[in-house]
Amino acid sequence: MQKLPDINQNFSEWYNEIVYKAELADQSPVKGCIVVRPYGWSMWELIQGRLDLRIKATGHQNCAFPLLIPESFLKREAKHIEGFAPELAIVTHAGGKELEEPLVVRPTSETMVHHMFAQWMKSWRDLPIKTNQWCSVVRWEMRTRPFLRTTEFFWQEGHTAHATYDEAYAEVKQMLGEYVDLAQNYLAIPVIVGRKSDQERFAGADITYTFEAMMQDGKALQMGTSHLLSQNFAKSFEMTFQDQNGQLAYPYLTSWGVTTRLIGAVVATHGDQNGLILPPKVAPFQVVIIPVASQPGDTVWQAADKIRLELEAVGVRVKFDDRDHLRPGAKFYEWELKGVPVRIELGPKDLAQAQVVLVDRLSSKKQAILLVNLIDSVQAELIDLQQALFDRAQVRLTQSWHKAAKLDQFGPNLENHAGVYQTGWCQSPACELELKKFKATTRCLIEDREFETCFNCDQASIADVIVAKAY
Amino acid sequence: MQKLPDINQNFSEWYNEIVYKAELADQSPVKGCIVVRPYGWSMWELIQGRLDLRIKATGHQNCAFPLLIPESFLKREAKHIEGFAPELAIVTHAGGKELEEPLVVRPTSETMVHHMFAQWMKSWRDLPIKTNQWCSVVRWEMRTRPFLRTTEFFWQEGHTAHATYDEAYAEVKQMLGEYVDLAQNYLAIPVIVGRKSDQERFAGADITYTFEAMMQDGKALQMGTSHLLSQNFAKSFEMTFQDQNGQLAYPYLTSWGVTTRLIGAVVATHGDQNGLILPPKVAPFQVVIIPVASQPGDTVWQAADKIRLELEAVGVRVKFDDRDHLRPGAKFYEWELKGVPVRIELGPKDLAQAQVVLVDRLSSKKQAILLVNLIDSVQAELIDLQQALFDRAQVRLTQSWHKAAKLDQFGPNLENHAGVYQTGWCQSPACELELKKFKATTRCLIEDREFETCFNCDQASIADVIVAKAY
Repeated sequence: MQKLPDINQNFSEWYNEIVYKAELADQSPVKGCIVVRPYGWSMWELIQGRLDLRIKATGHQNCAFPLLIPESFLKREAKHIEGFAPELAIVTHAGGKELEEPLVVRPTSETMVHHMFAQWMKSWRDLPIKTNQWCSVVRWEMRTRPFLRTTEFFWQEGHTAHATYDEAYAEVKQMLGEYVDLAQNYLAIPVIVGRKSDQERFAGADITYTFEAMMQDGKALQMGTSHLLSQNFAKSFEMTFQDQNGQLAYPYLTSWGVTTRLIGAVVATHGDQNGLILPPKVAPFQVVIIPVASQPGDTVWQAADKIRLELEAVGVRVKFDDRDHLRPGAKFYEWELKGVPVRIELGPKDLAQAQVVLVDRLSSKKQAILLVNLIDSVQAELIDLQQALFDRAQVRLTQSWHKAAKLDQFGPNLENHAGVYQTGWCQSPACELELKKFKATTRCLIEDREFETCFNCDQASIADVIVAKAY
Repeated sequence: MQKLPDINQNFSEWYNEIVYKAELADQSPVKGCIVVRPYGWSMWELIQGRLDLRIKATGHQNCAFPLLIPESFLKREAKHIEGFAPELAIVTHAGGKELEEPLVVRPTSETMVHHMFAQWMKSWRDLPIKTNQWCSVVRWEMRTRPFLRTTEFFWQEGHTAHATYDEAYAEVKQMLGEYVDLAQNYLAIPVIVGRKSDQERFAGADITYTFEAMMQDGKALQMGTSHLLSQNFAKSFEMTFQDQNGQLAYPYLTSWGVTTRLIGAVVATHGDQNGLILPPKVAPFQVVIIPVASQPGDTVWQAADKIRLELEAVGVRVKFDDRDHLRPGAKFYEWELKGVPVRIELGPKDLAQAQVVLVDRLSSKKQAILLVNLIDSVQAELIDLQQALFDRAQVRLTQSWHKAAKLDQFGPNLENHAGVYQTGWCQSPACELELKKFKATTRCLIEDREFETCFNCDQASIADVIVAKAY
């Protein structure tokens, strides 16, 4: 097998190759669309399982809105169509005929959802409406990269309607909180939480909250967003309800989503020169068992299969690699590449001593573990690894989170993607535009406050902002 | 509330109205596309959960193939494009430009999957490949009906590749068996299992197995299919592998799918004049608790909520209807309409006697149940109801499964959809075409053998065939 590109020298190539070599995804014959292969889809199912539980626990109901949306719907909210028009894929012919009105393959479903909400909403008793759907959407992208930016991508999109602004605002913050919990406590990815600038926010939102992570190359990655939408959406779709005083009122709307980009974030946050390193909670296989100097059916082979059953019985996701045409070394290499957190090696000598060799993917240190202690040791190791991966990423983020007052000082560093910069900003678009010279953007406005003046002009800063080169 | 149309006199209108009134689905602004509302989607999630478990237990892996397929791909298998061409929705423009090659919104994914299989398959060691995806597909239909025939529908599509014909054939039969189990033991719908005629089989298949149910109006419904595909697919996509003798060989391919049509089948099999009747296994709520002569917070209300918790603790899906602006009668009506299998009524007098009133949706009989026996009684009632619904549908199918030798005898009955007819058939397309005069089709060839000659001509029958008017 060919070695992976150097992760330090050429992160971008390393990333692309590991995604394909680890069989997370494959290129498809359609520009910018990937095939998510079973190993990658299994990660997505784990993320879905966890997040879907939380979406339901917070009172949302799943449903399904149509894939195709009348083109005129998107034009009803002026900023929405302005933002999405360049990215649309359009069905013009169907059933052998040209359509009277073209249909858009959904880039996001606000317009369709709002049209339906308007039918379902009569009185304040019908509110809140809290829905979610898991699906794929299509945005025609010029430059794509597997998982991080693809023409078709998979996501969940939550859409809610509320009687009051305060309730809608609380919803936006609640789901942002759920996302941050998912990122940090499940994907082991520390994030920076904040509000998007007016220029960077969702096309048609009043407020967009974001959570951003920093990849190993020092570039920022938007992990997901939660929006308080403009009242224009409600007005455009004639969505009203009778409030408790009998008056017609417009509801307040939110939407929020995370995508298969999260898989790319796991790859780009935790991987190393030997391949993926998967946090145990999101690993399709948490443990791989590899028999050494053993043949199908012999005592070692049987012992390995027994260990599999015992680990499965306590809820560990485990793979017994029982392929008999591959040598152990080839199996070590493959599962290392695929980032399985814990490897168990078992040979005749180990078995004679009633032990196995346990190797964790992060340190590669070998430990002899007595069989009687194996389940406890594996469970402890998985917890430790989950934490160790988060801590390592947290240290990296902290060390690369710089603070600097003026763009002319930190601008050149930005271009080398040397981490993220916290600075002051007057919030004028003109100053924000100066960042383009260094191929950087504002990532989010944060609550922490250290700077008095703008990074670019002499005006007072309104809030601190995180600035970085981004995916 | 307006009454539902008469289920005996006007089944078709009854069906459409109950789907919308029970909030399973709603019409969308796109022709033939529905919105699956939370109550309907919840049924789909239950079906998915059960079937996905079996798909994985039988060694398949989920993954995701692109939504859009190059138009040229569909044309590679001649019969496939012939079958699907009239139904395609076509993306001609994307990213603000006309595409060089139009893209088809997938009507099914064989062509895309086979293109990818060809990349993944080198030697016999790579076989079998057993994949599945849950997604939606689009087929431009002229006449639609919610769940039973929609332009966009949701489904799973399994795709596999095998080294030998026998292995592929076993796969096709295995998944057919899983589907029949799902229909009978989960949806409580008895089915007829058989093989499609050459004219009715999947566009590009050598063999299509089907399982068909009979709706309350005596019309047959194809519930799902399992296909052994023609080797042409492998040849068209240059899909070869090196067999154990080092020779290049073509694999044998299968595909199989069931759709959200299954929800429609549940509606049309079990419902009655008062609305849906959901088999407990596929009911979003198995039990609804309705307090009577009670206010929020009083002892009855608290007791009702305690019952909810106790039932949830043993895994029953339960709804405590705690809306305080509706009278119990309105709630009875609504949950009856929505087909909840068991209703628990609880008032001050019941509580004084440490009992509740339990009403099952099928018989509407009221039983007083002591609180100490409640969990056992509910669990027993759910099992009984599941069985009773299957038995009732089984009786109906048996009574409407007629046997007749000649079309001129049974043809006129077919037109009134008076059930299904078993007869003999020479398997000539000309005789099959005669059925059109009575708006009927062959549903499937079955193993049972009772007729010696064809229903239409004097030729010998090759196999017995089921004939019916169908959805």
